[in-house]
Amino acid sequence: MTFHDRARFPRGFRCASRNVGLKPEARDLTLFASEVDAAAAAVFTRNQFPGAPIILGRETLKGGVLRAIIANSKVSNVATGDRGIENARRMAAAASAELGTDAGRMLVSSTGVIGVQLPVEKIERGVRGMTADLQDDPLVGAEGIMTTDTHPKALSVSVGDATITWVAKGSGMIEPNMATMLAYIFTDAALDAATLDRLLRDAVGVSFNMLSVDTDTSTSDTCAILANGLAGPVDEPAFREALVAGCVRMTEILARDGEGAEHLLRVTVRQAATDVEARFVAKALVNSPLIKTMVHGADPNVGRILMAIGKCTDVTINTSATNASVNGYQVVGNGVRLDFDDAVVRAALAVEVVDLEVSLGAGLATARAYGCDLTKGYIDENAAYYSS
Amino acid sequence: MTFHDRARFPRGFRCASRNVGLKPEARDLTLFASEVDAAAAAVFTRNQFPGAPIILGRETLKGGVLRAIIANSKVSNVATGDRGIENARRMAAAASAELGTDAGRMLVSSTGVIGVQLPVEKIERGVRGMTADLQDDPLVGAEGIMTTDTHPKALSVSVGDATITWVAKGSGMIEPNMATMLAYIFTDAALDAATLDRLLRDAVGVSFNMLSVDTDTSTSDTCAILANGLAGPVDEPAFREALVAGCVRMTEILARDGEGAEHLLRVTVRQAATDVEARFVAKALVNSPLIKTMVHGADPNVGRILMAIGKCTDVTINTSATNASVNGYQVVGNGVRLDFDDAVVRAALAVEVVDLEVSLGAGLATARAYGCDLTKGYIDENAAYYSS
Repeated sequence: MTFHDRARFPRGFRCASRNVGLKPEARDLTLFASEVDAAAAAVFTRNQFPGAPIILGRETLKGGVLRAIIANSKVSNVATGDRGIENARRMAAAASAELGTDAGRMLVSSTGVIGVQLPVEKIERGVRGMTADLQDDPLVGAEGIMTTDTHPKALSVSVGDATITWVAKGSGMIEPNMATMLAYIFTDAALDAATLDRLLRDAVGVSFNMLSVDTDTSTSDTCAILANGLAGPVDEPAFREALVAGCVRMTEILARDGEGAEHLLRVTVRQAATDVEARFVAKALVNSPLIKTMVHGADPNVGRILMAIGKCTDVTINTSATNASVNGYQVVGNGVRLDFDDAVVRAALAVEVVDLEVSLGAGLATARAYGCDLTKGYIDENAAYYSS
Repeated sequence: MTFHDRARFPRGFRCASRNVGLKPEARDLTLFASEVDAAAAAVFTRNQFPGAPIILGRETLKGGVLRAIIANSKVSNVATGDRGIENARRMAAAASAELGTDAGRMLVSSTGVIGVQLPVEKIERGVRGMTADLQDDPLVGAEGIMTTDTHPKALSVSVGDATITWVAKGSGMIEPNMATMLAYIFTDAALDAATLDRLLRDAVGVSFNMLSVDTDTSTSDTCAILANGLAGPVDEPAFREALVAGCVRMTEILARDGEGAEHLLRVTVRQAATDVEARFVAKALVNSPLIKTMVHGADPNVGRILMAIGKCTDVTINTSATNASVNGYQVVGNGVRLDFDDAVVRAALAVEVVDLEVSLGAGLATARAYGCDLTKGYIDENAAYYSS
């Protein structure tokens, strides 16, 4: 799958972002819009305290049609009660009035501090005139939705005559359960809402849902796909393949930009008894603080890999047939740490992308999880997030 | 429960520790001995890659009798195959020969790096003459079993004529599943092995098993109790109460000395639907990196408490009746973050012991979990543990 050198939008999609006073200076309000109605599907966080925009979004997506997305950063509008829901509705109404569409076709996202009321008047005032700012560059929208991200995140790829474009944000509080923080996918392919929903769930299952920066599942996770049909029909298998590839690539981009991260960590589990167990072990390894710090320090303390597999007490493991390798270099054979040159393993760990592969000798299932190392940067960002 | 000002042993127990060359200078080999055989019980890690001493210890404890414990630090003898088992047996044999007892009454513990063979000859040579060093101070043994601990850990309490003494170590790789890293409990009360086993499992269930420094379950966790009977029979309810109190207190001491920790974090969950769910939510909160960093920074970002409760997607939560408080100060009411003075919550967080209490409005079950904040010290200790 070859992504475009510079991300671009499919036909008919544009975006705008600006500062409306939620943050001191940075862009804090972003509008993504299609020039015609688009078939749509979305997956949302499974957190039991979902934000008001999630509650509203589930209702909106029942129609299977979206025209636009309005997203703010700084305040997430979570744990804000009835007033939060009302504010999310007001945000949808203001953005749809500006765009000349129906509030029922506007997806709302909010990201930032939990438990603070949305300054909705600033958004209502600030959204006025944004239609005139709409432009072709997805990075403008990607920048507008950033919180602790260090760079804006957008990708695009061609599938026949159609284009698929991903715009996403996310850096901490990431162990998505049905989606990542905010990931929007735009295409001009003609696909109906039911097909989009099926394709999206399949793609999210092997990508955003296998991402974990810190085991903490956000209350605002949203992954939505909009297909406006302007490029006509598309070959579904090719579209599906591209959709999965782009979601996986965006997952890697998000993991690498995890709060404080210096390494992308990919954990592949093979020979598990079931898919569920393969995913469980892959997540356990990618989340283990002692694996994450080992990767951070490039410390060849690979015995920890067995600790992290073994702590999955309810998973079937053939302990005498368990193997592990680090970037292709085998360090565990038949459940025993092999003798090796520490310097070689240190060198294998001291690269930007660390692939950890383990095989459990218990079956045929495979899974891959995505994460990052644990550094002092994560602590710097999160010990004073609210106050800064 | 009033613990002794300075920990002391029950009648008939003594210990010795010395450097035998596993570490450059610090004590690395420790012997705990009873002058007569003691009824004994133990719980071990449930990690699927248990160390050789765990495999041997399970066999040894079948007899229900121990005379002594021999423990080394620096190398954990885990993932070392058949040679590891053989080395654990040699360690037991050498220590029991020195003491003049049977190898079947010697519990072996090893803690340190995973996957490195035990330098057993150094232990065999080094253990000679240790009987002559045996002394009355439990802190001598506590110091001998330290790894990344910042201080030796021992407690004692009187129960009628009897004494109970705890000696423990543990600082990282701590989310015990059936016990903590190494915790030894000595008493001169007369209790049989079956009674000890029952009392120990009950006490561990509400103490060491509710401790988590970093979600990583060690391959070497051992908690053993030895009762040599020299003080005669004891009132069982009083003994049980003291045993639980001491295990909880030692759990708090271990949590507070978690790697890099600056705060003890206690999370109490009330009104859960079941005991299992109460424990699950308490562990989720005590392990949440975003809760841990919030405590570290005394950042009043208490919306994160709802995030961490809500990410327990399979737990019954009455979201509109969920409450939370920080050191007695209510911050969440009926599922909504309350308005409060940030400075007050900041002050409530900025103390050494942080009590987080949440109630789920779903039932009558309660659980408490023990942990610590997440700091840069944890990363310093673990990014180069093997190499330093």
